[in-house]
Amino acid sequence: MDLSPLQKARYEYQPKLPSMLRHEIGEIEAVEGKTTESVSDQEEIKKLFPNTYGMKEVEFKKGKSHAKKRKEVVGVILSGGQAPGGHNVITGLYDALKKASKENVLLGFKQGPSGLLDDDYIELTDDYINMFRNTGGFDIIGSGRTKLETEEQFAVAAEVCKKHGITAIVIIGGDDSNTNAAVLAEYFAKTNSGVQVIGCPKTIDGDLKNDVIEVSFGFDTATKTYSELIGNIERDANSAKKYWHFIKVMGRSASHIALECALETQPNICLISEEVEKKQMSLSDIADVVVSSVVKRAEKGLNYGVVIVPEGLIEFVPEVKKLIGELNDIVALKKDEFNAISEWDEKYAFMKKNLTAESFGVFASLPLEIEKQLLMDRDPHGNVQVSRIETEKLLIALCEVKLKELKKEGKYNGKFSTLSHFFGYEGRCAFPSNFDADYCYSLGYNAFMLISNGYTGYLSTISNLSKSADEWKAGGIPITKMMNLEQRSGVKKPVIKKALVELDGKPFAYFASHRDKWAVETCFTFPGAIQYYGPSSVCDIPTRTLSLEHQE
Amino acid sequence: MDLSPLQKARYEYQPKLPSMLRHEIGEIEAVEGKTTESVSDQEEIKKLFPNTYGMKEVEFKKGKSHAKKRKEVVGVILSGGQAPGGHNVITGLYDALKKASKENVLLGFKQGPSGLLDDDYIELTDDYINMFRNTGGFDIIGSGRTKLETEEQFAVAAEVCKKHGITAIVIIGGDDSNTNAAVLAEYFAKTNSGVQVIGCPKTIDGDLKNDVIEVSFGFDTATKTYSELIGNIERDANSAKKYWHFIKVMGRSASHIALECALETQPNICLISEEVEKKQMSLSDIADVVVSSVVKRAEKGLNYGVVIVPEGLIEFVPEVKKLIGELNDIVALKKDEFNAISEWDEKYAFMKKNLTAESFGVFASLPLEIEKQLLMDRDPHGNVQVSRIETEKLLIALCEVKLKELKKEGKYNGKFSTLSHFFGYEGRCAFPSNFDADYCYSLGYNAFMLISNGYTGYLSTISNLSKSADEWKAGGIPITKMMNLEQRSGVKKPVIKKALVELDGKPFAYFASHRDKWAVETCFTFPGAIQYYGPSSVCDIPTRTLSLEHQE
Repeated sequence: MDLSPLQKARYEYQPKLPSMLRHEIGEIEAVEGKTTESVSDQEEIKKLFPNTYGMKEVEFKKGKSHAKKRKEVVGVILSGGQAPGGHNVITGLYDALKKASKENVLLGFKQGPSGLLDDDYIELTDDYINMFRNTGGFDIIGSGRTKLETEEQFAVAAEVCKKHGITAIVIIGGDDSNTNAAVLAEYFAKTNSGVQVIGCPKTIDGDLKNDVIEVSFGFDTATKTYSELIGNIERDANSAKKYWHFIKVMGRSASHIALECALETQPNICLISEEVEKKQMSLSDIADVVVSSVVKRAEKGLNYGVVIVPEGLIEFVPEVKKLIGELNDIVALKKDEFNAISEWDEKYAFMKKNLTAESFGVFASLPLEIEKQLLMDRDPHGNVQVSRIETEKLLIALCEVKLKELKKEGKYNGKFSTLSHFFGYEGRCAFPSNFDADYCYSLGYNAFMLISNGYTGYLSTISNLSKSADEWKAGGIPITKMMNLEQRSGVKKPVIKKALVELDGKPFAYFASHRDKWAVETCFTFPGAIQYYGPSSVCDIPTRTLSLEHQE
Repeated sequence: MDLSPLQKARYEYQPKLPSMLRHEIGEIEAVEGKTTESVSDQEEIKKLFPNTYGMKEVEFKKGKSHAKKRKEVVGVILSGGQAPGGHNVITGLYDALKKASKENVLLGFKQGPSGLLDDDYIELTDDYINMFRNTGGFDIIGSGRTKLETEEQFAVAAEVCKKHGITAIVIIGGDDSNTNAAVLAEYFAKTNSGVQVIGCPKTIDGDLKNDVIEVSFGFDTATKTYSELIGNIERDANSAKKYWHFIKVMGRSASHIALECALETQPNICLISEEVEKKQMSLSDIADVVVSSVVKRAEKGLNYGVVIVPEGLIEFVPEVKKLIGELNDIVALKKDEFNAISEWDEKYAFMKKNLTAESFGVFASLPLEIEKQLLMDRDPHGNVQVSRIETEKLLIALCEVKLKELKKEGKYNGKFSTLSHFFGYEGRCAFPSNFDADYCYSLGYNAFMLISNGYTGYLSTISNLSKSADEWKAGGIPITKMMNLEQRSGVKKPVIKKALVELDGKPFAYFASHRDKWAVETCFTFPGAIQYYGPSSVCDIPTRTLSLEHQE
């Protein structure tokens, strides 16, 4: 393996643990707090989790350990999309486990949850794990999107655990994966298998968040990487003074990434999906927001700017949401008929016949390329692949039409040359920032503390994150505490509540109070590349979102 | 102005000068070397530059300065596309000029060469210049693409210089801008205006290079930024194991950027335009190179990978070059007729009628979107905008057709899911790496040394760059030394010879000797983000290209 200079240097980095986890393992006590309830639907969720509902919050403190004295055989799984720091969760877990006893074993199941079902694993060793310390990616054991949710799967998993004498499974994943972790924990408890399940909160999207989980890991590094690029583009726009850059960033359901990048870079416009939904904005309304900035800046001779667009935006536009829903239904109901059509004109006519007049109106108003993306690119279930829709280009096209009109009316006399970008894959596997490296290592280390203290159905939590690492707190919360019931494919299911951008929260409030100025003036800020070394003010800074949320 | 933590920290960075420039200005002597000749067409170029041809190379050494004792009023101009480090050229120039005498003045002409013609400038002061130290972008005075090339323009420039008592102009630009700098220097010499002209070698493309100019500035930072992103994507590909990523990188004429990124990241495939031209490869040949890797990796169960594509690639494909030439001619000759057509089908028919059968065959073989890009997106002169053509998507489409065929024949049984990216604007305005910060500061500082020693028509040179900064050499070469005659719009013109990737050079040789392995195995390397702090092995490394070229 050829290593870059940075990779070699990062191997030497020793992630920072919260001070309470720096004691000898025998001197760390699990202190239990209040009994918990789920965030809503308490009765129903209690019924679904008779063995793991209503458990107590846990915090680790210096004291006398009551940890079990047994050999631990832990299986670890990476689930879902990559997020920087995943490797450090595993190295932290490994280091704690080996510190407790050299006899303990860590098995890594390969390519996600399917590795557990297929009994496809490797035993992690010093030599192997050292190659992944403080690096990005999930390639240490790979990841996958198989969902662990059926009784049949659980039975297979139980067999595999029994075979290897596994005492606990650690699942590193997002809201869905941790929901499944809770169901698996309940199954293992119900069947007295003796296997514990601990989750770790991963997702660059930042939507796995609540009063205890202050942020999911990877959000820090991914947003810093996107902000680096957006800042560079802003500086280019400000130097060349001739392009409007439309930049789409990842974030399917929640706009946390877009918002954080906006706070870091102060672009002219940043759209927030949650606000679009709340205000029931149409595509035309959204374009108006951008056009207003373009026109006002043109009046000042500034024919350039930067617009940030969250990936999931159009799903939050009520008229488009309705259109996509109808499209999915039609293609599902009349699958064969639709698939038999090869010519575009016929497909178009088919849609005219089958969509409601309102939705067809929206469809017909879209640029041809977007219409094609809506009809052509479908996922294996036949659904529109929203992530493949080039929302940034759609927005450009909508603005062009409006600006042409305004020009005719003599209300606009600028130039509107555009460039579009999409940043997503660029940030998911970056070397974790010091924050994510420390946070993830602590999450993994702490997951072992929960295991050895006998907990199951818990999420590993490290909190007080806006402070320096030695002030961080370590503990665990029952996953059921974060649950509510939601309609999924027509059935009410217990799931972890997704944390969307709160329009009355501090990060959005800060943005909202500055954006009018940013829209017209040039207030760009340039964060630059993530620094792993240098002054602490440069290399140890949490996100603006986290700082604002936990401002005193 | 709101500043990021990194920007504040970078203000404190003191760029490193070559040791010979660290002496007091009165202790630096200009030592003249050999008389120079242009690289070819010596007689013709000598005739065109009677006053500035055949001057001697200069190197600065410790000794007794013979610099002129006069008040210097220097005008500085940024020309062409942004490149990281431009601000440092200006701060280096400013610091040397003020060190020589507080009376000296630096004027910055705004938005490129047009600022000189419009007499649009600002006088640079400590407070203003300090806001731009070690930052990216050209926003200190802006840049532009106006060309200084006519006698009328020169006369206006002379007037403006006279008005301000300007003693020298420093032009920071690429090969074209420095060609114009030489012509301007000749004009000023011929007319005895007393104004000197000094150029500085800028361009991220890396194609302004010869035995004295080891690299143009900005190449280091831009390629490191692209390599960061490519490495992150490689790690993502290697973790998810489901996508082939096609990544286009800037570099219109030369493939230095693509090659450097390949050396840094070891992708499965990197295409090199110069090789495509040399081997007279067709689009189909190029697709075969990629397909071969896709098929071989699929046999090993590796249905993912990374392909780097240089921006200018298709112009180097003989059949496409011919097609583009014909398209440009047809649209120029039959402009009104062509512009009157609005429907796509008619445009297509028009092309069928007017293109040669061979070129129409190539045109018709392209995906619809690319056909449209060829006909629709045209620059102000009516030419095809090659940079807007989505070569990366074209390549994907070509590979899909071939793989489908191979699947039918039972010769391929993999999956080919693709994603495409284009990196260009992301790297042009990054904070300059320590290398570019030091190099640019030295170039600017050294430009003042050339001015005060009375030189004109010279390019500021800092060489021995693969060594540490204190071993760097400072001097100047006559721009005419780098010139040859080339056909431009039907006329033979003296221009600086563009440095393309040498297929017998060491960087390409290294790549060529490893690429067969990279194509089949997974040899990705992950450079990570540019580091400005930390171990020198991490934050002071030159490009692989420079290291290989100057390997001893």
